[in-house]
Amino acid sequence: MSGTLFVISAPSGAGKTSLVKALTEADAGLGVAVSHTTRPARPGEQEGVHYHFVAAERFAAMVAENAFLEHAEVHGNRYGTAREEIARRLARGDDLVLEIDWQGARQVREAHPDTVTVFILPPSRAALENRLRGRGQDSDAVIAARLAAALDEMRHHDEFDYLVINDRFEEALADLQALVRTRRLRHPAQAARHRELLAQLLTSH
Amino acid sequence: MSGTLFVISAPSGAGKTSLVKALTEADAGLGVAVSHTTRPARPGEQEGVHYHFVAAERFAAMVAENAFLEHAEVHGNRYGTAREEIARRLARGDDLVLEIDWQGARQVREAHPDTVTVFILPPSRAALENRLRGRGQDSDAVIAARLAAALDEMRHHDEFDYLVINDRFEEALADLQALVRTRRLRHPAQAARHRELLAQLLTSH
Repeated sequence: MSGTLFVISAPSGAGKTSLVKALTEADAGLGVAVSHTTRPARPGEQEGVHYHFVAAERFAAMVAENAFLEHAEVHGNRYGTAREEIARRLARGDDLVLEIDWQGARQVREAHPDTVTVFILPPSRAALENRLRGRGQDSDAVIAARLAAALDEMRHHDEFDYLVINDRFEEALADLQALVRTRRLRHPAQAARHRELLAQLLTSH
Repeated sequence: MSGTLFVISAPSGAGKTSLVKALTEADAGLGVAVSHTTRPARPGEQEGVHYHFVAAERFAAMVAENAFLEHAEVHGNRYGTAREEIARRLARGDDLVLEIDWQGARQVREAHPDTVTVFILPPSRAALENRLRGRGQDSDAVIAARLAAALDEMRHHDEFDYLVINDRFEEALADLQALVRTRRLRHPAQAARHRELLAQLLTSH
């Protein structure tokens, strides 16, 4: 019985990372796919936990081998999700979350049509701008560029199966949990999980 | 924005009625469709609340007018769900639960292909038989007939979208709540609900 791939996308400033962290930490059957990246590890980041850190040449070779389910370049660094890891973990029955942008979501949807895709929105324009402004240490130009990038991402909201508004964190988290729970209740997966119960219930004697 | 029709079926003894009661009482946006029936009202049952009580002639006329979304005969009494009530309440945006058997579910699915159908199973054969045995006042033949009917119902479990196991009541209730919550998060419904937010977020300035 194969697991489900959940793609979660959002503009920066929507709170996606905190939501995904809370979602996966509270659910042993739901893992996060570890991406490959060419960017250097930051202090505290661990190989194989936060990312697989690889050289640009290795990344390019993997692209050439079609080893990535999706990949993208952001600020000159490359990021990708290895097909093999996803396929192996789904086959084991794990559910997996991928935090990627709308372009990655499109690539994943093509390769895995039964992927569940979710877009997270901030509760207001003011909340979004506030989050993007950060700690007030960035120039107006930097903030304007972030806002433009967020708008660009949000314009693709309608390519996703589900829309979650991150107004209250606990409610948005409960939304994501409901999506995961519902997916596990689908008939074929549940019937496989409860095969013995069904056999026992359906015996006539 | 139209509401969703949820069909919930189960063998007698699976706890469906208590689950649906708890589900709908805790959710103001989720109503129960009131069936028409030819059986006499029992003490405490109210017209228009528990059932629409109608004479056999009236029921037959409604069948002839194709006024029922689904109808069935059980122990010589007829039961049906009026199309008009369902259509009107869904159009108003209400979500609705129908508690019907697999044959009714099949009729509803044909008329409303986007119905969400759920089958509830008891946690074990022993639990099922125990529930069907009731308070020990029925003959073995009556209990055997109930068990046969339950088996007949359960053989159709695989026609449903979702399978819920009523082992612990609170968990089964949370399963049903997740199904309803998930449905409301689907993109077109959410985008319609949050039209102003989307307009505000997507304005470039």
